[in-house]
Amino acid sequence: MEKELAVELLHSKKFVQLRTELAEMNPADIAAFVEEMAELEDFGDRDLTLLYRILPKELAAEVFTYMDSEFQMVLINAFSDKELRDVIDELYIDDTVDIIEEMPANVVSRILKNTDSDTRKEINQLLNYPKDSAGSVMTTEFVYFQKDCTVREAFERIRCIGLVKETVYTCYVTENRKLLGVITLLDMLVADYDTRIEDIMETNVISVNTHDDQETAAQMLSRYDFAAIPVVDSENRIVGILTFDDAMDVIVEENAEDVAMMSAVLPSEKTYLKTSVWTHARNRVVWLLILMLSATLTGAITNHFEAQIAAIPLLVSFMPMIMGTGGNSGSQASTMIIQGMAMDEVHLRDFFKVVFKEFRIALLCSTILAAVNFVRIYITYKDLTIAAVVSITLIGTVILAKLLGCMLPMLAKKLKIDPALMSAPLLSTLVDSCSMLLYFTIALNLLDF
Amino acid sequence: MEKELAVELLHSKKFVQLRTELAEMNPADIAAFVEEMAELEDFGDRDLTLLYRILPKELAAEVFTYMDSEFQMVLINAFSDKELRDVIDELYIDDTVDIIEEMPANVVSRILKNTDSDTRKEINQLLNYPKDSAGSVMTTEFVYFQKDCTVREAFERIRCIGLVKETVYTCYVTENRKLLGVITLLDMLVADYDTRIEDIMETNVISVNTHDDQETAAQMLSRYDFAAIPVVDSENRIVGILTFDDAMDVIVEENAEDVAMMSAVLPSEKTYLKTSVWTHARNRVVWLLILMLSATLTGAITNHFEAQIAAIPLLVSFMPMIMGTGGNSGSQASTMIIQGMAMDEVHLRDFFKVVFKEFRIALLCSTILAAVNFVRIYITYKDLTIAAVVSITLIGTVILAKLLGCMLPMLAKKLKIDPALMSAPLLSTLVDSCSMLLYFTIALNLLDF
Repeated sequence: MEKELAVELLHSKKFVQLRTELAEMNPADIAAFVEEMAELEDFGDRDLTLLYRILPKELAAEVFTYMDSEFQMVLINAFSDKELRDVIDELYIDDTVDIIEEMPANVVSRILKNTDSDTRKEINQLLNYPKDSAGSVMTTEFVYFQKDCTVREAFERIRCIGLVKETVYTCYVTENRKLLGVITLLDMLVADYDTRIEDIMETNVISVNTHDDQETAAQMLSRYDFAAIPVVDSENRIVGILTFDDAMDVIVEENAEDVAMMSAVLPSEKTYLKTSVWTHARNRVVWLLILMLSATLTGAITNHFEAQIAAIPLLVSFMPMIMGTGGNSGSQASTMIIQGMAMDEVHLRDFFKVVFKEFRIALLCSTILAAVNFVRIYITYKDLTIAAVVSITLIGTVILAKLLGCMLPMLAKKLKIDPALMSAPLLSTLVDSCSMLLYFTIALNLLDF
Repeated sequence: MEKELAVELLHSKKFVQLRTELAEMNPADIAAFVEEMAELEDFGDRDLTLLYRILPKELAAEVFTYMDSEFQMVLINAFSDKELRDVIDELYIDDTVDIIEEMPANVVSRILKNTDSDTRKEINQLLNYPKDSAGSVMTTEFVYFQKDCTVREAFERIRCIGLVKETVYTCYVTENRKLLGVITLLDMLVADYDTRIEDIMETNVISVNTHDDQETAAQMLSRYDFAAIPVVDSENRIVGILTFDDAMDVIVEENAEDVAMMSAVLPSEKTYLKTSVWTHARNRVVWLLILMLSATLTGAITNHFEAQIAAIPLLVSFMPMIMGTGGNSGSQASTMIIQGMAMDEVHLRDFFKVVFKEFRIALLCSTILAAVNFVRIYITYKDLTIAAVVSITLIGTVILAKLLGCMLPMLAKKLKIDPALMSAPLLSTLVDSCSMLLYFTIALNLLDF
C-alpha cells in the first residue's frame, strides 16, 4: 500500500479497508510504515492516534513496541488510562522497561500508575540493573517446571501461559527458583508424553549472572547456539532469560558503539537521521578538541627543528607520508587487537605472543614500504641521504606504531578502560609525535645543515 | 578438568574416566579444550585421534564441527572410510560444506566419495551459491508439511525426523516445494491436535532469495525477531532456511570485515592468533603501499610551497594539527554513514538530507575548533594573522572532510562498491592533500613573504 493512499483512507474514514490492509503486514513493517506516513504534511498527531486505534488491540500493542520513542510518547499522551493499561498488559516487561527508559518523568509515572503492583515490582527491578548488564536486557517472562512434572503436564502449562515464540523454545526446571536444569521444546516433543522432565532435562546448565556484561551474555548464547540463556542472581536463582533476538540486538548495538568510539565519536542511542545536528556536533566535537590540542605536541616538536626546516624545506614534503603511514600501521594493529579481544579470541595472557607477532609483522611491512620509498625518492630527487633518512624513519615509525597499536588496547583492558578508546584517532596523534621526533633526529644526524 | 590431567588420563589409558569427564562438557567447550590440550608438548596427532575416538559417536561428530580446520584435517586423514562416513552422516549439510571449503582437494574428494549421492548433490548445490549469498549459509534441512496435515500428524513427523533445535522452531507448509505458509512450533502447541495446519499457518510469508546478500537475510531475521527465515529460489520454491544462530555468525563476520576494511586491512577468515605473520603482513601491506604512494601527492603540494616554508618555518608546526583534525572529522562522518547504511537506517535517497546535515554539523564543530585554536595560537605566538590563517584553514578543512566523508561512501554504494572502502584511511589521504593546498593558498594570500 502507498502511504498517500493510507492517509486518504484514514481521512475519508474508510477504517475497515485500512485496518484490513494494515493487518496483513508484519508489526515491524506497520510501525515503519506509520512512521513514514507521519512524514507526510497532512498527517498530524491526531491521525497517528486514530490510526493506532483502528488496529486490532493485540497487533496495536506489538506495533507500539516497534515504534520510535517520539511516536510512543505522542500515543501515550493521547491514551486514556484504560488504553494505556491495555497496551502495557500486552507488552513484555522488558519492552515496557525500554519504553520507560526513553520517556520523561511525568510519562513514566503515568505508566507506572497504570501497571499492577507485581509488574511494577519487576519493572523497578529491571531498571535497577546496571546499564549494559545482562539483567538490564533480560526478559523476566519464561517457562519453568518442577522436576517431577511430565511432558504432558509441561505442554499443558505452556498452552495455558501462552507466551510468544522467542521465550518458550527453552524451558527451565527449578526448585525454589534455583535452576536445576534446562530442556528444549524439541527435547519434550520427541519424548514420550509420560516421561518426567527430570529424566530428560540437561543438568549441566550454562547461565550468566545478572551483573555480567550484556555482550558476554550475548556471546555465550552465540557460542553455544542457544535460543536463550538463563540469567541467574548471585544465589543461582533464575530471574530471567536472554533470548536470541535480544542477544542479536545487543551484539549489533555493542558493535556500533565500538566502531563509533574507534572513530572518535561518542555513541548515540538514536539512528543517524533521527539524531539532531546539535547532538551530532556535541558527540563529535569533544574528541576533535582533545585530539586537536594533543596534535600541538607534534607541532611543538617540528617547531623545535625550525632551523633544519628552513635549511632543507624538502624535508617537510615527506611529513604527511610518514605520519599517514604511521597512523595507518597503528590503526591496523589496534583494530585487529580490539576486535580480537571483543570476540574473545585474544586474551591478556597472550600479551607477549601478540607483541612478538606484531613486531615481526611490522618488520616485514616496514621493510617493503621502506624499499619502495627509497627507490621512489632516489629516482625523484637523486639524493641517497634523504632517501635513507626517510626510509629509516619509516621502518622505525611502522614498528613503533604497530607495537603501540597492539599494546595500548591490551593495557587499557588491563586497567578496565574500554580498549576501543585506544584506537586510530588517539594512536595517530601519539604516533605522529614520535615519528616526527624520530624523523628530525635522524635527519639531524645524517644530513649536513 | 585440567588439560594436563586429561593428557595423563589419555596416556595412562584411563579412557572410561576421561570419556565420562569430557561427556559432561558442552561440545563447543570440548572442542576448545582439545585444542588447548594440543598445545601441550606431549600431545601428538595420534593422541588427538585417540581422544576423538573415545567420545560417544554423536557427541564426537558435534565436537568435530566446532574444531578448527587444521584439527579437522588431522582427524579426517586419520579416519577410516567408515569413520568418515559416520561423521558426515551426523553432520548438518551446511557444516559439511563449511568443512569442504577449508580442505585441500584430496581431502574434499575423499569426503565426497564417502557421502551418498543425495547428500553429494546438496553439497554441490550449496557450494555453487555465490560467496556471501543467503544460499551459501542456509541449511537445507528443515521441516515441511502439506497444508491438510493436522497438528498431531505434524508432531509425529517432527518426532520421526528428529532434527535438532535450531531448525525445527519454525516449520513450513509447501505444495510442490512452493512455499504456502509458515508455522511456529508454539502455534502448533497451543492449537488443538486435530486442527489442520492450513487453518493456523501464517500465509503472509517473509522470505529471502538464495542470491540475496547473507547480511540482508540476517538483518531481516533480526528485524522480525524470527528464529529462522526461509530461503527460496527464483520460483518461490523453498530450498533452505537461515537459522538465528547462523544469522548471528553472519552479522558478526560481516561486521568484522567492515571494521577491518575501515582500518585498511584485508579481511582474514581466521582468528588473529591463528593467522600467520606472513598472512597478516600481506593483508596489511597492500593498503599501506597504496596509501603511502597516495600521500606523496600531499608531499608534492607542500613541496610546491618550499619558498614560503623556508621564509616562515612556523607554518610547518600547524600541519600535523590541520591534517589530523581533517582526518578525524572525515572519519567521524564516513563511519556514521557507512554504519547507517549497513544497518539499513540511511539510504541513497537520503543523500541531500545527509549532506545538508553534515554541512551544519561541520559548521558547528569547525567554529568551535577554530575559535579555540585562534585563542591558543594568539596567546602562544601573539600573531593575529597566523592565528587567522590556521583557523580559516581549519574551518574549510573540517567542512570539506565532513562533506567528503558522507558523500564518498554513498557514491561508492551507488556504484556498487563496498562503502567501507571509503573510510578513514583513504579519506584521510584525500583530505590531507586538500587541506594542505587550502592552508598554503590562504597563507600565501594573507601573510607577507
